[in-house]
Amino acid sequence: MDDSFQYTILDKIDSPADVKRLNTDELITLCKELRHYIINVLSENPGHLASSLGTIELIVALHFLFNVPEDTLVFDVGHQAYAHKVLTGRKEQFKRIRKLNGLSGFPKRSESKYDNFGTGHASTSVSASLGMALADKIKKNNKNFHIAVIGDGSMTGGMAFEALNQAGSTNANLLVILNDNGISIDKRVGAMSGYFTQITSSHKYNKIKNQIWNAMGGDKNANNKHLTFFRRVLLFFKNLFAGQSTFFEALHIRYFGPIDGHDLPALIATIDKLKKIQGPKLLHIVTTKGKGLALAESNPTVYHAPGTFDAVTGERLKKQANGNEPLKFSEVFGKSLVELAEKYDNIVAITPAMLSGSCLNEMNKKFPDRTFDVGIAEEHAVTLASGFATRGIRPFCCVYSSFLQRSFDQIIHDTALQDLPVIFCIDRAGLVGDDGATHHGVFDLSYLNMIPNMIISAPKDEVEMRNLMYTAVFSEKPFAIRYPRGNGFIAEWKTDFKKLEIGKAEEIKCGNKVAVLFIGTVGEDVKQAVKETDGENNEVGIYNFLFLKPLDEDMLKKIFDKYASVITVEDGVKTGGFGWSVTDCARKNGYKNDIEIMGIDDKFIEQGTIAQLKSICGIDKDSIKNKIYEKLSENFANKK
Amino acid sequence: MDDSFQYTILDKIDSPADVKRLNTDELITLCKELRHYIINVLSENPGHLASSLGTIELIVALHFLFNVPEDTLVFDVGHQAYAHKVLTGRKEQFKRIRKLNGLSGFPKRSESKYDNFGTGHASTSVSASLGMALADKIKKNNKNFHIAVIGDGSMTGGMAFEALNQAGSTNANLLVILNDNGISIDKRVGAMSGYFTQITSSHKYNKIKNQIWNAMGGDKNANNKHLTFFRRVLLFFKNLFAGQSTFFEALHIRYFGPIDGHDLPALIATIDKLKKIQGPKLLHIVTTKGKGLALAESNPTVYHAPGTFDAVTGERLKKQANGNEPLKFSEVFGKSLVELAEKYDNIVAITPAMLSGSCLNEMNKKFPDRTFDVGIAEEHAVTLASGFATRGIRPFCCVYSSFLQRSFDQIIHDTALQDLPVIFCIDRAGLVGDDGATHHGVFDLSYLNMIPNMIISAPKDEVEMRNLMYTAVFSEKPFAIRYPRGNGFIAEWKTDFKKLEIGKAEEIKCGNKVAVLFIGTVGEDVKQAVKETDGENNEVGIYNFLFLKPLDEDMLKKIFDKYASVITVEDGVKTGGFGWSVTDCARKNGYKNDIEIMGIDDKFIEQGTIAQLKSICGIDKDSIKNKIYEKLSENFANKK
Repeated sequence: MDDSFQYTILDKIDSPADVKRLNTDELITLCKELRHYIINVLSENPGHLASSLGTIELIVALHFLFNVPEDTLVFDVGHQAYAHKVLTGRKEQFKRIRKLNGLSGFPKRSESKYDNFGTGHASTSVSASLGMALADKIKKNNKNFHIAVIGDGSMTGGMAFEALNQAGSTNANLLVILNDNGISIDKRVGAMSGYFTQITSSHKYNKIKNQIWNAMGGDKNANNKHLTFFRRVLLFFKNLFAGQSTFFEALHIRYFGPIDGHDLPALIATIDKLKKIQGPKLLHIVTTKGKGLALAESNPTVYHAPGTFDAVTGERLKKQANGNEPLKFSEVFGKSLVELAEKYDNIVAITPAMLSGSCLNEMNKKFPDRTFDVGIAEEHAVTLASGFATRGIRPFCCVYSSFLQRSFDQIIHDTALQDLPVIFCIDRAGLVGDDGATHHGVFDLSYLNMIPNMIISAPKDEVEMRNLMYTAVFSEKPFAIRYPRGNGFIAEWKTDFKKLEIGKAEEIKCGNKVAVLFIGTVGEDVKQAVKETDGENNEVGIYNFLFLKPLDEDMLKKIFDKYASVITVEDGVKTGGFGWSVTDCARKNGYKNDIEIMGIDDKFIEQGTIAQLKSICGIDKDSIKNKIYEKLSENFANKK
Repeated sequence: MDDSFQYTILDKIDSPADVKRLNTDELITLCKELRHYIINVLSENPGHLASSLGTIELIVALHFLFNVPEDTLVFDVGHQAYAHKVLTGRKEQFKRIRKLNGLSGFPKRSESKYDNFGTGHASTSVSASLGMALADKIKKNNKNFHIAVIGDGSMTGGMAFEALNQAGSTNANLLVILNDNGISIDKRVGAMSGYFTQITSSHKYNKIKNQIWNAMGGDKNANNKHLTFFRRVLLFFKNLFAGQSTFFEALHIRYFGPIDGHDLPALIATIDKLKKIQGPKLLHIVTTKGKGLALAESNPTVYHAPGTFDAVTGERLKKQANGNEPLKFSEVFGKSLVELAEKYDNIVAITPAMLSGSCLNEMNKKFPDRTFDVGIAEEHAVTLASGFATRGIRPFCCVYSSFLQRSFDQIIHDTALQDLPVIFCIDRAGLVGDDGATHHGVFDLSYLNMIPNMIISAPKDEVEMRNLMYTAVFSEKPFAIRYPRGNGFIAEWKTDFKKLEIGKAEEIKCGNKVAVLFIGTVGEDVKQAVKETDGENNEVGIYNFLFLKPLDEDMLKKIFDKYASVITVEDGVKTGGFGWSVTDCARKNGYKNDIEIMGIDDKFIEQGTIAQLKSICGIDKDSIKNKIYEKLSENFANKK
């Protein structure tokens, strides 16, 4: 970290009020210092770098012009809001962003009054802002403004469209700022993408538009009766030259721009004019993801969340490679999918905007015609997959666990009800670490558990994941495979594919007093905990329930017959999950065993390292050890 | 029913192949006969009338031109597909539509090979069809066509937009037919609504467009190199005169129309031309909901599903009014909401296109500025409500149970994670009867149960529902109230509002051997069942757990202490629901009571009357009686 830099302006900013006092030159300096500060902090404390560098001028302009939180400001997704955090009294705390008990990586209402709405998942900002704007109308508050900052990637999410569609039929005081950087995390996809490019590159259109604007009296007429005529003339030329720029106007949202989102004076002047225009409106700004750090500008996908890097050169710092470190689960997944796709030509991959994250780049390179990035569109992704399945194709529908919550209805209604063989590859399942509460994939086992026809599995390691993938190819039913963020356990993961028996649990170790049953990669902690607690009497058994559904009730009955105490371990919410399923099996069959459920309690979990969070949730190795000791001693006491 | 009518053509149609053999005059006659047949059948067997009358010419044209199921045909929502069912070998069975073991009211893959994709929820058709189209491309099948028929109402659903956005970036052989009848169930809302109206009413545009089409060589050039230039000229005029018709073209979907959807020869000629145009395209047709039945045409909302009516006049047959019959739960809800809105000016109502269904018409009439119909947009509805809640407004977010599945992620991420006091009013909870598998609201208790911060309630009757609504107004947390389709139990429902203690169960009757615990309106069956089984020893207790969460664990412990046997009853899926929660409470606290769970097993439930379905699911009065007898005799046996 470069501690010698002098923050002449930033040092004086403790709240947005301090921003308002600055003149233009000072504001421009502030942007430079913010950029330096964010780069400097993130070089040592990994975070969402590139997006946050792209919105610095915008955020400064907004705090200069508006009175947040009375005026409301909602950042879509929210990983681009770092400058906002720094300007709103969280400059020092920013050094602990995404750390346990530090700042959240996303806006968060409980963290600051300046965060009007928490975000994390995409495409929510227009809905939330519209709600605030309409609320103020009801309260006869006409003085406050309501601003949603949404990236072009988030614009592909259906709920943004739903919100714009309603907004256009209201006179809500809503300003949507479309932050167009041509990229979400991966390259932007979908038809809208070409649409945005076309608008922004139409020089003829922009030139003529500016001429008309000036000829009509410029901003003097922005809010008077000429506007309608002005807009009609504008539309005429817009349609004539740009060809296709009336998308938003079809939704009755007034469209302005595009303008350069790094030109602070222009941003301030334009947004200031828009404050005088009533009703819903959209300003299209063009920004550069990673602005100000050359390597990030040229590699925005890599620098979306680059890890640690050199604050001056931007060079990413390589971790010490030990040569034989296991790959990430996602990596093994991606490579295994390519292997399967080579064998079976009816396999396709679908991802909602997570081509890199889900490690589908190799698949996309080898089989571009069988790899579908549908944009941030989880609902569509699942129903698209279901459509594929009706025509004999085996879709691997790859969605992060917490984002798959978006597709809950589609999994029920389009996949499971029709019993279609869609393969759900659920990445980032369980606790994900520093992204925190919005991103933990802790509900999936429970929300899938209630859906009829589903096969639900979670491998204990990456080899088992490969075998589940292989097994799923031949399944005639919907098949979910969930696996966690982070590294696997096995360096030599590339073993021959093996078909697994669906619904069959695995006895890893036989015992006689306490049985520990697990699902998923928490098995690694279980095995270690048992190793460290079990004595020579071999009292503790270990059972791997890789299938939540169908649940291996035969194995459970054997376990209930043999062991007085049963401990279940999972890295999802307890409610409705694996432990509850085991308990229900005992109940149904009249077993009265003592059952202890280790999993996530009924509360939201914040950010931290995965190890910290597992410990907090009581599902780490030590917690399991303690529970085993407790049960062994109870067993012993009962015996006496 | 009018049985004298002669179906000269329809009688000869056993499959789509028979349609293809007809000449134009015969096809027109077929449409008349289909219309007569559908009206005739539905006059006695209630169903979705008005939508199905609007699509008859379209369906005849499609079966004349395409080879379903090799060519695929997906009806969005699907309640407009009756003519399709009649033409595809289900003419006789159609008389038992929506009845137990009869035809589903929606397309259904397991019912007929001609139903390429099951539907029921809105806005899925483009996604599914695109999946089929892309699947065929992978299989190098270029001969088949893929058609999605989507209403203008469904077009407001975000996932339709997501699908169009992807479709526009492919060269999939996809034809989207926008069936624009200006209405979904209630009046169409949102900005898109004005957009469609503007296109269809622009005579100048249509006239000029036709002139250009002809000048350019008409359909002769439909598929050649002139097209690009032709389309550019067309776009010029389109934009010039219609002003706003490039919405779909912004998404790179070729737009054609609008044309009269009841002009069969024009439909056939136009669609036949479109078969020659590669890539994704959209045909906008204008139809009249209820076409051919004057009363339905003029009251499309009422005749969406009119119940029984006179087949000739269309007059709806009134049920025998007994004067003092209890109102529907929805009606009591709607009236109570108006009462509350009169008292508290921070209350608003939100509905995704179910103003009538959720009985919000009165609210809308009295408080139009506080009633928001957001279109078919459940995701947006919940986040909008969350935005409202941040500004001190108490939103009553009214969504049918099975449609609220669409908002699962928004409830977690936007409402519960921020602990915002949104009031979820979940109508059509439990088994809904004749709409069948896609519409049963049986997952809600389970999918809400796992979400932290939620208060989840289900009243035993409409008075308790009112009191829950009142209690929710003062809650600072998200609050769900679920209630069923159909009539309540209490004629004098309008009692004074009473605040309930959140999380407190109610002892209705004390016993000593068997306790029956219930949640929701199944309590009525429970009370009746206990009345008919309990002897003078007063052995059976009844407990009303109106709150699933927070669960009244104190009451449960008392029950576990007192009763050997506990029976739980709910009208939702067992997995993760009320019974499982009770079981988990017993487990946690070391109780070994015998617990029996009555609820819906892990399978999808088809259509039938609610009474039939309750019996099939084993949650009707008789099933409960049998279970009580069984438990009493076990208790007796154990005692000996």
